[in-house]
Amino acid sequence: MILVRGGTVVTAEQRYRADILCGDDGQIAAIGPQLEIPGGCTVVDAGGMLVMPGGIDPHTHMEMPFMGTTASEDFFTGTAAGLAGGTTSIIDFVIPDRDQPLHDAYLDWRFRAGKACADYGFHVAVTRWDERVSRDMALLVEKCGVNSFKHFMAYKNALMIDDPVFLHSMQRAAELGALCTVHAENGEAVAFLQENLLAQGVSGPQAHPLSRPAALEGEATRRAITLAGLAHVPLYVVHVSTREATEAIAAARLAGMEIYGEVLPQHLVFDAGVYEGSDWLAAARHVMSPPFREKAHQEALWGGLVSGQLQTTATDHCCFCRGQKERGIGDFTRIPNGVPGIEDRMSVLWHFGVASGRLSEAQFVAMTSTNAARIFNLYPLKGAIAVGSDADLVVWDPCATRRISAATHHQNVDYNLYEGMELTGVAMKTISRGKLVWDDTKLDVLRGAGRYVGRPAFRRKG
Amino acid sequence: MILVRGGTVVTAEQRYRADILCGDDGQIAAIGPQLEIPGGCTVVDAGGMLVMPGGIDPHTHMEMPFMGTTASEDFFTGTAAGLAGGTTSIIDFVIPDRDQPLHDAYLDWRFRAGKACADYGFHVAVTRWDERVSRDMALLVEKCGVNSFKHFMAYKNALMIDDPVFLHSMQRAAELGALCTVHAENGEAVAFLQENLLAQGVSGPQAHPLSRPAALEGEATRRAITLAGLAHVPLYVVHVSTREATEAIAAARLAGMEIYGEVLPQHLVFDAGVYEGSDWLAAARHVMSPPFREKAHQEALWGGLVSGQLQTTATDHCCFCRGQKERGIGDFTRIPNGVPGIEDRMSVLWHFGVASGRLSEAQFVAMTSTNAARIFNLYPLKGAIAVGSDADLVVWDPCATRRISAATHHQNVDYNLYEGMELTGVAMKTISRGKLVWDDTKLDVLRGAGRYVGRPAFRRKG
Amino acid sequence: MILVRGGTVVTAEQRYRADILCGDDGQIAAIGPQLEIPGGCTVVDAGGMLVMPGGIDPHTHMEMPFMGTTASEDFFTGTAAGLAGGTTSIIDFVIPDRDQPLHDAYLDWRFRAGKACADYGFHVAVTRWDERVSRDMALLVEKCGVNSFKHFMAYKNALMIDDPVFLHSMQRAAELGALCTVHAENGEAVAFLQENLLAQGVSGPQAHPLSRPAALEGEATRRAITLAGLAHVPLYVVHVSTREATEAIAAARLAGMEIYGEVLPQHLVFDAGVYEGSDWLAAARHVMSPPFREKAHQEALWGGLVSGQLQTTATDHCCFCRGQKERGIGDFTRIPNGVPGIEDRMSVLWHFGVASGRLSEAQFVAMTSTNAARIFNLYPLKGAIAVGSDADLVVWDPCATRRISAATHHQNVDYNLYEGMELTGVAMKTISRGKLVWDDTKLDVLRGAGRYVGRPAFRRKG
Amino acid sequence: MILVRGGTVVTAEQRYRADILCGDDGQIAAIGPQLEIPGGCTVVDAGGMLVMPGGIDPHTHMEMPFMGTTASEDFFTGTAAGLAGGTTSIIDFVIPDRDQPLHDAYLDWRFRAGKACADYGFHVAVTRWDERVSRDMALLVEKCGVNSFKHFMAYKNALMIDDPVFLHSMQRAAELGALCTVHAENGEAVAFLQENLLAQGVSGPQAHPLSRPAALEGEATRRAITLAGLAHVPLYVVHVSTREATEAIAAARLAGMEIYGEVLPQHLVFDAGVYEGSDWLAAARHVMSPPFREKAHQEALWGGLVSGQLQTTATDHCCFCRGQKERGIGDFTRIPNGVPGIEDRMSVLWHFGVASGRLSEAQFVAMTSTNAARIFNLYPLKGAIAVGSDADLVVWDPCATRRISAATHHQNVDYNLYEGMELTGVAMKTISRGKLVWDDTKLDVLRGAGRYVGRPAFRRKG
Repeated sequence: MILVRGGTVVTAEQRYRADILCGDDGQIAAIGPQLEIPGGCTVVDAGGMLVMPGGIDPHTHMEMPFMGTTASEDFFTGTAAGLAGGTTSIIDFVIPDRDQPLHDAYLDWRFRAGKACADYGFHVAVTRWDERVSRDMALLVEKCGVNSFKHFMAYKNALMIDDPVFLHSMQRAAELGALCTVHAENGEAVAFLQENLLAQGVSGPQAHPLSRPAALEGEATRRAITLAGLAHVPLYVVHVSTREATEAIAAARLAGMEIYGEVLPQHLVFDAGVYEGSDWLAAARHVMSPPFREKAHQEALWGGLVSGQLQTTATDHCCFCRGQKERGIGDFTRIPNGVPGIEDRMSVLWHFGVASGRLSEAQFVAMTSTNAARIFNLYPLKGAIAVGSDADLVVWDPCATRRISAATHHQNVDYNLYEGMELTGVAMKTISRGKLVWDDTKLDVLRGAGRYVGRPAFRRKG
Repeated sequence: MILVRGGTVVTAEQRYRADILCGDDGQIAAIGPQLEIPGGCTVVDAGGMLVMPGGIDPHTHMEMPFMGTTASEDFFTGTAAGLAGGTTSIIDFVIPDRDQPLHDAYLDWRFRAGKACADYGFHVAVTRWDERVSRDMALLVEKCGVNSFKHFMAYKNALMIDDPVFLHSMQRAAELGALCTVHAENGEAVAFLQENLLAQGVSGPQAHPLSRPAALEGEATRRAITLAGLAHVPLYVVHVSTREATEAIAAARLAGMEIYGEVLPQHLVFDAGVYEGSDWLAAARHVMSPPFREKAHQEALWGGLVSGQLQTTATDHCCFCRGQKERGIGDFTRIPNGVPGIEDRMSVLWHFGVASGRLSEAQFVAMTSTNAARIFNLYPLKGAIAVGSDADLVVWDPCATRRISAATHHQNVDYNLYEGMELTGVAMKTISRGKLVWDDTKLDVLRGAGRYVGRPAFRRKG
Repeated sequence: MILVRGGTVVTAEQRYRADILCGDDGQIAAIGPQLEIPGGCTVVDAGGMLVMPGGIDPHTHMEMPFMGTTASEDFFTGTAAGLAGGTTSIIDFVIPDRDQPLHDAYLDWRFRAGKACADYGFHVAVTRWDERVSRDMALLVEKCGVNSFKHFMAYKNALMIDDPVFLHSMQRAAELGALCTVHAENGEAVAFLQENLLAQGVSGPQAHPLSRPAALEGEATRRAITLAGLAHVPLYVVHVSTREATEAIAAARLAGMEIYGEVLPQHLVFDAGVYEGSDWLAAARHVMSPPFREKAHQEALWGGLVSGQLQTTATDHCCFCRGQKERGIGDFTRIPNGVPGIEDRMSVLWHFGVASGRLSEAQFVAMTSTNAARIFNLYPLKGAIAVGSDADLVVWDPCATRRISAATHHQNVDYNLYEGMELTGVAMKTISRGKLVWDDTKLDVLRGAGRYVGRPAFRRKG
Repeated sequence: MILVRGGTVVTAEQRYRADILCGDDGQIAAIGPQLEIPGGCTVVDAGGMLVMPGGIDPHTHMEMPFMGTTASEDFFTGTAAGLAGGTTSIIDFVIPDRDQPLHDAYLDWRFRAGKACADYGFHVAVTRWDERVSRDMALLVEKCGVNSFKHFMAYKNALMIDDPVFLHSMQRAAELGALCTVHAENGEAVAFLQENLLAQGVSGPQAHPLSRPAALEGEATRRAITLAGLAHVPLYVVHVSTREATEAIAAARLAGMEIYGEVLPQHLVFDAGVYEGSDWLAAARHVMSPPFREKAHQEALWGGLVSGQLQTTATDHCCFCRGQKERGIGDFTRIPNGVPGIEDRMSVLWHFGVASGRLSEAQFVAMTSTNAARIFNLYPLKGAIAVGSDADLVVWDPCATRRISAATHHQNVDYNLYEGMELTGVAMKTISRGKLVWDDTKLDVLRGAGRYVGRPAFRRKG
């Protein structure tokens, strides 16, 4: 048992002084002012600190095979890095091989994730359509705790689906009470622009954003929303990075549709300037999709978050080391897409959101944890501080600062986007299902301690 | 002490089975599955029922002197009717007489409200500008528990203010950490149209909506938002009834502004058809401002609520009996503006919202109680089910129905807008600060039992 | 020579009293008040009448092979019907067979159109992409007087193209100084809905609009605009029928893009009610794509026209007789899509536009003739009343009425959409390149008298 | 008589080679290729040049008494400067003194303008409301050739009107067949911000834009449009300078309203940077209202112009010399508002519009001349090249350049906004009602040669 003592509890709803007792079953056993210390209980001092629900990162890609290589971060190192930053759960992605049945892929990924040291779940990608896919979707929802399916409108000749596949999958998801998620960029147009750029001899990473203009994200987002309206399915748009997409989501919501949007903190902080300059590797290390955008988009994303029209923050954590990035020398389309960030998400959002006055503490909790738990039907098991909820907690120092560096981070990758930044807001201690796994600068994690968290299908309103 | 036993607790965040113990101090003492029954405790059976935070109606006008008469409902009868419908708190309005100092008016209204049998607070209207007003605003915020000031952009030659008064009041409110609320219709244009209509001999109640077109609410809402942006003050728009206003609020929020919007259930249910036909009294009984609108606006209001861009529901409860309404025979501009509704708000929203599948139960609680509590800084004293919160509860039967009629309602007025409707969703029992005051069909209220609830000023984000 | 005497000339720019002398070369030789009558000149009395540029219908499908049959109206009967209604030029479509080279198709259509009795030009449809298509586009622009290429985003498994083909064609058109035109509906989604409806046993014509919701036109329009922005090509959206598409076009234009929109008068007059009722044939005779829409869309179309954001009116004239429509008994997806209208376009627009007070006479001329001439680079050869312009004129009685009926129309099809309507505004006389071909109720046309009108490529601004 | 020989005629509609014969009556007598030279006719060589309708500047303030001084440019010098730049007509403003009857003011201004050397007309400002104003409006429309009334929503305690005055004036204008024009900024809010800034000790010209944020123009524009909708009157918004106002106008037009917008070239060229820096006089010389805006607004204005949603360009020419501007030392609210520009408008629009590829030549003519003529009912007397139109012509060298300087300009003011700029596109010769008044660099003007041009009331569509 652990007693978190003397802190100020902050949830998405309220802020109050209370101690929290975490039971040996990994759940919160009691909450209250000045709880008695049971025998054999470890006391964690949270004096002067905030105690918040552990973060949920609903968008990671651990050890993902992609673009001819495999992401360097595995489920163990990645979840450990998350814990060091206050994130206690992830939702990763099952990506089937070309002809692999969905359920087989799911089993593969369950196996890979067995090494995780924090809790995890899976979205499952639908990358083609046939009867087997349809049957496996049912199996996954009904037996395997999967309630969300991912769709890629980009990555032509790889993960990309066309509108009919998307529609069939949406219709099936609606029948099953599952949610659809989408990477919304017009992949056909991206491929067209990539060819044009290469044909013109523009082959360096500075071509990456040119091949993925903001308008193509807006287009695909509006199209996905239109199709979701036909299929009567809730839609979650991952990594919204543009004003166009934000406005499309807000408009659809205002029309009564159930549409959600996710923001990556890196899109709030960095802009297209990262691709300029002559340092190939520096630019390549920022190659991800959607790319970093013109600065004007950042205001739109903040507005979306503050107004509640965009609900979650995630990282799309997908790590590639120098040698992997260098596969794309001479051809930017071969630079593996992805950047790290799971360890820093919460500090970055606190620093640029809360410390800067844009967000309240309660909004911070909502955007890093509670909203994801609600949207993906994990709440109140996760995302809450309540008796009976999982004892996933972060003890947060709102005033402490830390300097970010690849030299000190726990992510298994050789760079850090935020290298050298001094951020205010630090996860001092992290508790994962009742165990103190991060204590100041010390990780105490166990390979395989993470548990798969099934997510039940949705009931409809009413 | 009261133990509410066997119900399903529904809050704005979650749904779970628990008993609730209400202490003699009027606060919630314990929440948990199968609580023990303390000695001397009354047990309230909530089996098969939902237990929700008591409703908060943030917009009522009890015994308001207006248009040459006084609203028939007083603070006692009005709060009693609210309790019969599940509403345990109101925020009414202090409306100063022409030259009356704000604080004097506040004292008058505190005196009047002394008879209330449920809790209450006050918004204070700013209807002119001078140094005394400015000083009294500070006094009200700092000493009297007022954190919101009301502004009327309509009612020319009565309550209406112009833009400079509005700006000064907003600026002062911002300094004081208070919120501004606004009735947004362009009152100058309304007066112009009223004159035109009367000059053309159009003097019946069917002229009322013609004198207040939707565009004038849209215009005033956008103007109020623009001015709030200059003054850096949060703005709460009362009784949003149009698509234009909804879209203006949503756009401002998406731009990062702190703007809120309130919906009256009657605007969701009735449309401009209520002014048609030859029954003068029937039409006059629907004369309120803003008026009932073309049906197309209702979809916009629902969209605003569902997407979270409009946050609260209120009634603008303001009752005038037949004799009072008839003051306007021959001149629609003299028909006292106002309709009843405090008793029926929650049933109406459940029936047309939850039972119809538009809203979840959690959204219902948010829109009838929790959001108002948050916005007006009453949370978690009100609007929550938590240990230490006021024991304001409603035991709700989601499936029961009741037929609405002025013959049986508790409102002190001789008609009911919803006359004859059979609504699903009924407040079976209401607990007000730990006392069972409504039990099935029996009111057990005490004149003066209601307490004034002060609301502290706001702290800024961060 | 013909002298049109005593009329009031109305162009897109002005209105003045003048006589017009049409030379034997088919061009306007002189314009002025009270011109002298040259020897041997026929005098056409236009006293009390308006004299306007002959109409241009930029969207017709004469004798088009489509959906297993061929449109009943041929180039002779169709252009004759147009002349009877005041339309002196058409732009029809070259639709290549599946693998047919574009230029071969062009030659086929030139041959077919040889029988026309009024002037004509061609848009050429791009329905696939390869090197031959690219070369033929250049040939058509540089040698054949084609400056516009058509793209179908609908009609899956027939004319539909995907985004890459569209992008390649747009890029090529931009290089060549040609315009792209588009039928904007998401054909994949339409096919999906068609399958769903048929699978549910909904197979009658009332399923047609259900399979083509307005949102799918909005989606495709926005997508086409996005792609045109990448390719830097002007885009002309045919048969805009929805608010969504209108707003998308207006927004793109406001952002500085060169986007045009076309309206069919039938969409201004009829709504989705035409598919209701039990008369299979009546409903099937309204099957066209996009379908007739909810009434609310009509206001948007009028607004688009009046504000200049939609520029032209056309008919999409494509005739199928009863036996042809009946191919779709039992399967609405087999009902040949298309309705007649070339003969009535101008009367319908006058009646519902000018006579109703929505449009000025000058706007009428712009929308029926001049704007199409400008957009498709026929101006001032066509669409103008100026010395040297083709003597294509209509003598218009703004007050006369005529009753529409298939029994009396000149279109080669067995029904008329406007059957029984009495319309104000009648083409009394039509002059085609200097010949009086329609005189009151008498057609005097010559098979083959129409001339192919080549349209040069566009120069860029500046 | 003058024969303009060898030029290329460019109108808002077409481009063709023709000579133009200007009769002694000041009208165009003939247009055609290679016209014969009548006896006694002066030949003006336009070889290699464009011949366009003379410019119309619909917004000037010659010798206007304003803010305690009088604009330095009088009707003679101002119209002369216009002619040197290709502008052959102006529409200036009658601004009544505080209690002066409108018709008296009109007579005053007619008297002042008697010295003009180019044609002129007047908008008349309505600055208060009473019966006399109403009667004078009728007199002005019916007897004096005034068809447009100006309204200032800004300039508190001076020209500003409130909504009731605006509504009464609009309603009266609608009855009379006149147009309303409006300066749309919320003057109450401007005054509030001015006071705040002065109270904070911010008194230099850099405070000017801070006191007039873009949002206040957007607000007032939307309000004016809303009121115009109630009054059913066409509305012309002068000096649109923001994205917000542009979008409001475009949206209203798309909704079918008759709303027009005017752009000042200086807003297309300069941004808020002009108020920065330490040179008081340089900043003060840019003080005008609305002020120069953030650069992002310029794209919106160009989009508005190119799409036809904003129709005209004007200058708001209102000149104050150094001594006059210095009245505002120590108090920016006393700096006379206004900048010069009539001489340079056409060159600036050609250079930044046509030469840069944003505008076609035809659009240039529309925006500098024809659209203003149409909107203010001067067409085709002005704004056209047609037989019978006034022979107001500019012979334009599209490739020539000139360097702008106060040292060489003809404006009676001691600075030039465009000082030092080298602009492409030069008025080589200007013909005013058949007289050659500007020939290369030589002005040949006659005091009083300008004529008052009455403008008839509008007929409604249909």
